Amino acid sequence: MARGFRKKIDQQNTENSGFGANASGRFINKDGLPNVKRRGVNVINRLSWYHTMLNLSSFRFITYLVVMYILINLVFAFIYYLIGVEHLTGIDKSDPMNEFIDVFFFSSQTFTTVGYGRIAPVGFLASLVATFEAFLGLLTFAIATGLFYGRFSRPRAYLRFSDIAVIAPFQDVTALMLRLAPYKNNALTDADVTLSTAIEITENGNTKSNFYRLETQLSKINTLALNWTIVHKIDENSPFYGFTADDFKNTNIEIIIHIRAFDEVFSNTVVQRSSYVSREIIYGARFIPMFYPDKEQESTILDLDKINAYEKADLPVFEPEQS
Amino acid sequence: MARGFRKKIDQQNTENSGFGANASGRFINKDGLPNVKRRGVNVINRLSWYHTMLNLSSFRFITYLVVMYILINLVFAFIYYLIGVEHLTGIDKSDPMNEFIDVFFFSSQTFTTVGYGRIAPVGFLASLVATFEAFLGLLTFAIATGLFYGRFSRPRAYLRFSDIAVIAPFQDVTALMLRLAPYKNNALTDADVTLSTAIEITENGNTKSNFYRLETQLSKINTLALNWTIVHKIDENSPFYGFTADDFKNTNIEIIIHIRAFDEVFSNTVVQRSSYVSREIIYGARFIPMFYPDKEQESTILDLDKINAYEKADLPVFEPEQS
Amino acid sequence: MARGFRKKIDQQNTENSGFGANASGRFINKDGLPNVKRRGVNVINRLSWYHTMLNLSSFRFITYLVVMYILINLVFAFIYYLIGVEHLTGIDKSDPMNEFIDVFFFSSQTFTTVGYGRIAPVGFLASLVATFEAFLGLLTFAIATGLFYGRFSRPRAYLRFSDIAVIAPFQDVTALMLRLAPYKNNALTDADVTLSTAIEITENGNTKSNFYRLETQLSKINTLALNWTIVHKIDENSPFYGFTADDFKNTNIEIIIHIRAFDEVFSNTVVQRSSYVSREIIYGARFIPMFYPDKEQESTILDLDKINAYEKADLPVFEPEQS
Amino acid sequence: MARGFRKKIDQQNTENSGFGANASGRFINKDGLPNVKRRGVNVINRLSWYHTMLNLSSFRFITYLVVMYILINLVFAFIYYLIGVEHLTGIDKSDPMNEFIDVFFFSSQTFTTVGYGRIAPVGFLASLVATFEAFLGLLTFAIATGLFYGRFSRPRAYLRFSDIAVIAPFQDVTALMLRLAPYKNNALTDADVTLSTAIEITENGNTKSNFYRLETQLSKINTLALNWTIVHKIDENSPFYGFTADDFKNTNIEIIIHIRAFDEVFSNTVVQRSSYVSREIIYGARFIPMFYPDKEQESTILDLDKINAYEKADLPVFEPEQS
Repeated sequence: MARGFRKKIDQQNTENSGFGANASGRFINKDGLPNVKRRGVNVINRLSWYHTMLNLSSFRFITYLVVMYILINLVFAFIYYLIGVEHLTGIDKSDPMNEFIDVFFFSSQTFTTVGYGRIAPVGFLASLVATFEAFLGLLTFAIATGLFYGRFSRPRAYLRFSDIAVIAPFQDVTALMLRLAPYKNNALTDADVTLSTAIEITENGNTKSNFYRLETQLSKINTLALNWTIVHKIDENSPFYGFTADDFKNTNIEIIIHIRAFDEVFSNTVVQRSSYVSREIIYGARFIPMFYPDKEQESTILDLDKINAYEKADLPVFEPEQS
Repeated sequence: MARGFRKKIDQQNTENSGFGANASGRFINKDGLPNVKRRGVNVINRLSWYHTMLNLSSFRFITYLVVMYILINLVFAFIYYLIGVEHLTGIDKSDPMNEFIDVFFFSSQTFTTVGYGRIAPVGFLASLVATFEAFLGLLTFAIATGLFYGRFSRPRAYLRFSDIAVIAPFQDVTALMLRLAPYKNNALTDADVTLSTAIEITENGNTKSNFYRLETQLSKINTLALNWTIVHKIDENSPFYGFTADDFKNTNIEIIIHIRAFDEVFSNTVVQRSSYVSREIIYGARFIPMFYPDKEQESTILDLDKINAYEKADLPVFEPEQS
Repeated sequence: MARGFRKKIDQQNTENSGFGANASGRFINKDGLPNVKRRGVNVINRLSWYHTMLNLSSFRFITYLVVMYILINLVFAFIYYLIGVEHLTGIDKSDPMNEFIDVFFFSSQTFTTVGYGRIAPVGFLASLVATFEAFLGLLTFAIATGLFYGRFSRPRAYLRFSDIAVIAPFQDVTALMLRLAPYKNNALTDADVTLSTAIEITENGNTKSNFYRLETQLSKINTLALNWTIVHKIDENSPFYGFTADDFKNTNIEIIIHIRAFDEVFSNTVVQRSSYVSREIIYGARFIPMFYPDKEQESTILDLDKINAYEKADLPVFEPEQS
Repeated sequence: MARGFRKKIDQQNTENSGFGANASGRFINKDGLPNVKRRGVNVINRLSWYHTMLNLSSFRFITYLVVMYILINLVFAFIYYLIGVEHLTGIDKSDPMNEFIDVFFFSSQTFTTVGYGRIAPVGFLASLVATFEAFLGLLTFAIATGLFYGRFSRPRAYLRFSDIAVIAPFQDVTALMLRLAPYKNNALTDADVTLSTAIEITENGNTKSNFYRLETQLSKINTLALNWTIVHKIDENSPFYGFTADDFKNTNIEIIIHIRAFDEVFSNTVVQRSSYVSREIIYGARFIPMFYPDKEQESTILDLDKINAYEKADLPVFEPEQS
């Protein structure tokens, strides 16, 4: 069965997916990033620390900053301790622990440039280290400023995709549908969508994935303020023409969606991608509308919690060609 | 009457507005944002705090910063007070109120890293809190730096639209006209405009809005330095062909304008939108020119106060088809 | 004579210049900005202070910062003085002048958050003002940080245009030529040029300017590393077809050039404009090449000082039509 | 022989390379920048210090910052010393060297605004200089903040090109191939490539370079996550049609590659260029694949160390035309 459908696909295989015959597994992860691991070079050259910092969650980002702050102060506290507490005024010398605590706080007062002066360096070496630490502190916060700005000013589409795609009745035939909606107070215009699919086929014992472009009913919209249901009509021009429920279940299929829009606040083009594999496609279902007029009929309400809401739907019976 | 015109509209309804049949009320607000309310998810996920901060007025933005500064210092003052004023040097201990005032100011001197040192922490706990507060202070100002920059570097078109659109005589027929002008010292080039309309019609008791693209006489200009009057000729290709003054008044019409231009200072594309509903369309009027040569004939003067200036104008009599 | 050429111009007048029939004087200034003065609204709404700050010369920008710094400190010094010097520790009270000097420096130490503490506030009012001043100081430097970054990160083309355009011999006929070269260590690619002209004509006693697009021999180049000579061939498709030396001298002509390129360092599109009026067009001249191989034939040298270098050149005699 | 091939090239010479007949040596350096030296103007106007700062290596950038920090403090230390150490409190006056050390550290404590206060200015002149130094310090760190952000937020393609291009068998004929791969954790989509070549020919004793566009098998791909092998088929439409191994070796050829893609993290278009000269082209070789499925067949592994891996390959014998 999974073999039988292969002859049904007479669409032109597109070669510009960027994934060759040797690629394996899901191509695009659910979050839109390619499922590729890099090897070689060394790990430092392979990572853009800025891209890494931008992709951290807020919690981890703040945690990293705090940990780094403590570590730097420990290192400098140790250095001041080695130089000798007699080169700092105002240290509580009652016992070594108190001494270390005081040099630690002296370090933090220097690093943040708060510099109360209750503890202050005297003599060349302690002053030199403090001079360097204050400089380092300012540069560190300069970098932190850039990172904060980079993180929150980074243009993003803020789109939520439905977790599932459906095969729904549509104009006498069936259509593959999935939907998305902007979930934040950004303003997207001039949106366009590209839909493609990778279908794994086995020929002469070799398994490989072919890529096809999927035509959509509407590929551009002016204002992306409500949800957008992407509709790929399964007619004779579709690579899924003639697919049965079993074909959808038993074949390795991946649907890749790529949205591009213009964000009016950032004045920048934003993109977002996602993908659906066979187990995320529901055969014989239709989406339930997720927006409706408000009570006063003066505005439209978009209910984001309904993005995955669907109901069962009977599909028209497909008359397959002789096979 | 409001029913009669419906057969006049034989233009292709465009489906790529982004607003479906269930949308209600004005589609695009006067300020260009879509008239949509989002529900679901939780409010924190639904708001981009950065977009929110960028859209605040300067006054509210500054107020928020000041309030937050006072609140943070109150919280830290309370913590220092709990730890005990004996862990801070130089506190005026004459009465509890003075103590609290002094720990409050110690907090602010720490948060801003001014650190005079007249009041300074001694002992582990007070020092630890101060260490953390100075760090928090620097991160807060790092974020504030980013927000300030984000606010004032945000590319914007700075266009002023006329409050009203007019139906004016134009080349033997009539035309819908509205105008706009750049009102700041920015430099816009390569501007293009898209005009569309939503017309509400009632069929079989159902009310829905159809969307039409409106052709404009000139859709691109090289330099947007003077005002630009957008002209949509109402000929047989217009969805307004045959509309009477009453039709314009009694039908729910919305004109949506979308401008895109290149700002040479930001080196960025900027966009701006606005909309006009039926009550903002004046039938039988023409705009009065708003620019003229200066006295020395060596420059052109653009008078922004005249953007809404219009005069009554007689329209050619329309010969309607049999209806 | 200046009248006779008018019938020679049978090119399509382009209407999308953005300058209407009422505009006057030079349209685009030498620096590329439109020659338009805005009136109306109020001056504060008409100015984008950020655009203004970005366009200031470095010297004026720094001067403004220093002046603002001194003024702010004078204001705060005055406030502290009013509150009373007895609320500040460590003030030199030998005479009022010294007192004022000390409160001034206390103010600056607070505003910059240096806070030595030799002078420090005691009591509610002085502490409150200092608290506010330190906060204001940090926000001010936050804004300054944004302005500095905005100024130096602003994408610019850094192109130098020749001061003059020439009418030179070219392929049996003549051509209007002007040239430009990148003069900084930026890297421009994918450059394209748009050339247009405004020609003032007098008809029935009315003077108005018509706009024409000028075709160029080459309108796109891949790498803009050397100079680029823009060539508009004056053949029967040119609005200057049949123009004599006198026509060029006696007619109000303005040549407008608009360059767009991609800067690889900024990863951004940059644009630059300039214009040439009649007195900046030299009839019968050709540019002298401004780049040549270096001695080792291993690199190319671009001599920017030669950008205006030209030599006299005889033009082919033009056989005018019957007029 | 190197002469004989010239008649084989009957392709249209493209003129839009941006390099004229007088250019010399390699056109595009290996790092993608044009091989052009600028002269004239003065060096300060010829350098964009911001572009320079962005292109410095991290090590040199940090070194410059540190050196500048030390120099500024030396200058201010000297000024304070001239004013007289009696105008600073807390100076160690045991000997002139100690005095200078203390004023140096006072300077650094002022410049970084750490301001312990152990040393503090008294009197007008020392206070004035300190006021100015703290202001300068904050502006300097404002600029440093901008530079750091500019450096790490600068959109870059992070592509690694193969060091060599190969002439490999391809579909009965031969093809010029080179390859590239993204080596960092950035996410590139919508990549397109432009390939061109400069071929030096000698005619009538004059040596000049002609530029040709090279057609590629695939000029756009959707996702640039794995390596991309650029293939230029050497058929009758190629300027290399009929080239022998000796022709490739003995002719001055330069292959220029220009990639443009969209980075989803920066939401920005990024470009990268490189070039290959004759000695970097290997005749009769094919690249060895550099990606393969991982063990679990659930992901794809890209081995960046193999980017230059190739093996010898026999080329089909070319049947030259009569020459």
